[in-house]
Order: sequence, then C-alpha cells, then structure tokens
Amino acid sequence: MINKENIAEYFKQLQDSICAQLEKGDGQGIFQEDQWTREGGGGGRSRVIMGEHIAKGGVNFSAVHGPMPEKISNALKIEAGSFFATGVSIVLHPDNPWVPIIHMNVRYFEMDNGLWWFGGGIDLTPHFIVKEEARFFHQQLKSVCDRHHPDFYPRFKKWADDYFFLKHRDETRGVGGIFFDRLNEKEGLTKEALFDFVKEVGEAFAPVYLALLEKNKDRAYTDSEKKWQLLRRGRYVEFNLVWDKGTKFGLDTNGRTESILMSMPPHADWVYNYQPAPDSKEAETLSLLKKNINWCS
Amino acid sequence: MINKENIAEYFKQLQDSICAQLEKGDGQGIFQEDQWTREGGGGGRSRVIMGEHIAKGGVNFSAVHGPMPEKISNALKIEAGSFFATGVSIVLHPDNPWVPIIHMNVRYFEMDNGLWWFGGGIDLTPHFIVKEEARFFHQQLKSVCDRHHPDFYPRFKKWADDYFFLKHRDETRGVGGIFFDRLNEKEGLTKEALFDFVKEVGEAFAPVYLALLEKNKDRAYTDSEKKWQLLRRGRYVEFNLVWDKGTKFGLDTNGRTESILMSMPPHADWVYNYQPAPDSKEAETLSLLKKNINWCS
Repeated sequence: MINKENIAEYFKQLQDSICAQLEKGDGQGIFQEDQWTREGGGGGRSRVIMGEHIAKGGVNFSAVHGPMPEKISNALKIEAGSFFATGVSIVLHPDNPWVPIIHMNVRYFEMDNGLWWFGGGIDLTPHFIVKEEARFFHQQLKSVCDRHHPDFYPRFKKWADDYFFLKHRDETRGVGGIFFDRLNEKEGLTKEALFDFVKEVGEAFAPVYLALLEKNKDRAYTDSEKKWQLLRRGRYVEFNLVWDKGTKFGLDTNGRTESILMSMPPHADWVYNYQPAPDSKEAETLSLLKKNINWCS
Repeated sequence: MINKENIAEYFKQLQDSICAQLEKGDGQGIFQEDQWTREGGGGGRSRVIMGEHIAKGGVNFSAVHGPMPEKISNALKIEAGSFFATGVSIVLHPDNPWVPIIHMNVRYFEMDNGLWWFGGGIDLTPHFIVKEEARFFHQQLKSVCDRHHPDFYPRFKKWADDYFFLKHRDETRGVGGIFFDRLNEKEGLTKEALFDFVKEVGEAFAPVYLALLEKNKDRAYTDSEKKWQLLRRGRYVEFNLVWDKGTKFGLDTNGRTESILMSMPPHADWVYNYQPAPDSKEAETLSLLKKNINWCS
C-alpha cells in the first residue's frame, strides 16, 4: 500500500537518478546541493548544476507539511487542515541555442481529511523549433500517457497548451508537452495506478532530454542565434514571473526564494520591439508558438 | 482652468523636454519613436534610446480614453463609466554600474462622473548604494515636495518604501524616493495646485538624474562590478514582473506589451543563491536595501 512516506522516498530517489543521468549527459558539471528546512515543517534538497552544456539547471526535491496556511487553502478552494506536499521540480537552461529549455515537475499532495492528488508535467521550450524534435518529444510523452489511459495525452497536452501561455505576447512558452493536476480516484484509476503514471513521467524525463541534448550540444551556432536564445530566455522569465501560478504563489507565501527562482536563466536579454526578419527561422519559430498544434499526427 | 486636454498636452511637452535633455546627457543616443493607437480610444508615443551611457531607456507618453473595462473599474474600486488617463513613464538602465537605474512616472486620471486624481513618483535603484548620492537624490525630492505641502515628502517617501519592495527577497528595490496616487481635492489643495506639484516632480527628473549620470558615467569599473550590476538588474526584473501593480495590470488588460516592458533591462543575470563577501560593497548595498532609512537627516 502506498502512502505519503514512500511517495516522498520515491521522489527523492528520482531526484538522485535524474541528477546522475544529467551529470553524465553534461560530462563536466556536478550538482551542488543545499538542504533546507521549512519553518512550518519539512524541507528539501535543492540541487543546481552549472555545467558545460547545461548552463544552469536546477533539480529540486521537497517534502513539506504542517498546518495549511489560509492563503493557500483559499487559493486551492479546500478546507483548512494539515497538509503534506512532496515533489520534484526541474528547469534546465542549456548553453547551446539549438538545445531546448526543459521543465519537469511531479508532485503529490494530501490533506489530513483524506483528500489527495497527483500533479505534474513536462514541457519543452526550444529557442528554435525543430519540427522533427517537437514530434519526437510529444510522441515520447504520448507513449507514456497511452500506457495508462487513452484520454491522458489529449487532455494533458491541451492543458499544457493552455497553461504555458504568455497572454501578453499571444505566444505559447514553447511547444508544450503535458500538464496535469488534481488527479485522484475520480479518474477511475487507483492511487497505485496514478502513482505508476507519475513515476513513468518522471522516469521519461532524463532520457528524452538527453536525446535532444546529445543531438545538439555540439552544433555550431552564430552570434545572432545566441542573441535570439537570450531573447527567448527573456520570454521564459516573463512567463515564470508573470503567469506561472506556482512561482507567484511560492513567492507570495514565503517559499524558499532561491529554490523557486532556480528556474531563472543564467543570462537573459530584452530588446525593445524586436521583430525577426520575415521568413527567417526565428519568424518560423514564432509562427509555431501557438496552441493546438498536433505534433503527433 | 485646467482640463484633461491641457494636462495631456503638458505631459507631451514634458516627454519632449526630458528626451532632449537625456539625449544631450548621453551624448550619442537618439530616441526612436513608435506612435501607437489603442483600440478602445487614444494612444501614445513610445520612445526608446540605446545610447552610450544610457544602455536602454524608455520615455513613454500616453493619453487613452473610452469605456472603462470592468476588470479595471473593479480593481480601482470605482463605478463603471468612461475614463481618460494620461501620463509619462520612464525607466533608464545605464551602462556603467556606478550610475543608478531610475524610474519616473506622472499621471492623471478622470472619469466622466467627475472623479479625478493625479499620481506618480520618482525612485532610484543604485547597483551600488553611495550614501552621499542617495542623500542628494532624496534632498532634491524633499525640496520639490516641501514647496507644495509639508506632509508630502514624509508621506510619499514612506509610500515609495512600501511600494518598491520585493517581499520574496525582503529587500527594497533601491533607495526609494517618492510615490503618490489618487491625489485630489481631499488633499486640501486645488486641482491647479496639485498639477503644479506634479509638474515640478516631472521637471525635477532630468536634472537630478543627469547630475548622477554626469558624475559617474566615466567612472572605471571592474568585471565583478559589472557582474553585480547584472544581478541587480535581475532583481529589477523580479520587482517589475512579480510585484509592480501597473506592469501586471497592463499585461493582464491588453496594454501595449512593448511599451509596458520597455522597463526591462537590456541584459540581466541570475546566479543561484549568490552571497556577496562579508564587508564587501555589495554586502553594504544589501544592508541598505531596507525600508524607513531617513536619507534627509
């Protein structure tokens, strides 16, 4: 029988496993760890890498508990009580503009009144969208989803399109992926079956990303491609600070700032009203930052 | 008798005057203008400079009107109706880390039911706080305020301390300045007298900033001082995207994104959990990013 302790223990091992795979993929960088404790209960292990190919990456594990702050129970629209939350959260900013930015999160939440759910997702933010790679990425996620429920991929793909969206730019953050939240017995699956799904999402992350890293990490790039990467990182900052619910919420409720903001890129640029040349690959990328593109057709 | 047309006309001239003074102070950069119109009514002139000493600066004028979107009347807690809003808004990011970032805004708002107010302020964000310069800056603002009302400086100085605050960092954005909003006849001053005050705030901006620019623009700096500047610019991004009400509101209500985000720095850096060396000038700056420092004693 699974319980919160063994879910947290699994996430801890997942963090270890992903860090080991990423270090191997980078070839040079080593994760530095900060252990922290939360005043209200629990804590975490924040790990950051500044490698050769992964310019700045964070792989965080946390397991926190205690009385639920009112601000949070109101926001989640649930009754007050004691909560437990654990998860792994990752953002990687690569050095090479041809390697995409990636984000992954898997999480579990429960209240002492018996309420529980899983959440998570993986989404990809290429600086330059390469259609073949976007298809590969989505196909991998679809395979994971399809092994658990035929509705998961279409539902969670749409959820990612809607969530990772910069309203003020009328752009998606990248090519999306999957996003899901509050998965519980109402899905018609047991807790064990949902946990199996979440595990498989977590375990798919490193191989999928390392395939993209390996393919592109040594690809030659121009100054102007690097500049475009820095502008796209600026958009990543805009999404995370303006629209990402988790980031805003964490910063507003005394989360550990440095762990929350490990998602920030090492370096980002803003140029007023930058417009890529018509028919350039930058313009093509912008044209593909749209919801509802079917990458698995 | 002043009315919305001549307030807008004055702000337009203020934009011209400030741009001319900043071009002269920079010595090389020339403002590029974009004129834009707003679907619901009105428009603006966005001007951006990428100069020798002012790395990236924006000086925006706008005068917009029309039926008030419900989202905005709710947020402002006022009755629905037709509105008119005009103002000048400025953010300058200097090249030299010893020159501070500065922000200025003056604005006027009215509803067709007769409600009206002025708002605005100036605040300074040094990368390295030089006490003598912070005192000079506050003394200039105090002189402007004191000519109009003995309470203005202490009230508006505290308002700036409270407003320009990064809760998630427990830091003020910089050394503050003055901030005020919804000033109307309840201040015990006529509309003319309040407009005179706002005019003087607007006109104080360029000479005060140019004094600081002139003093420091050619000061030698090290690579490590430049790096610190980029980290402080990261904090500026965090404030504007996470906490600044005007920015969030504009992005959420279909404002002109490029004009709103002209406040973004040209480049910014994030380093995980960066801690300056004890007793360094960086550490001293952090120790002064606090509310309620009296710079005019």
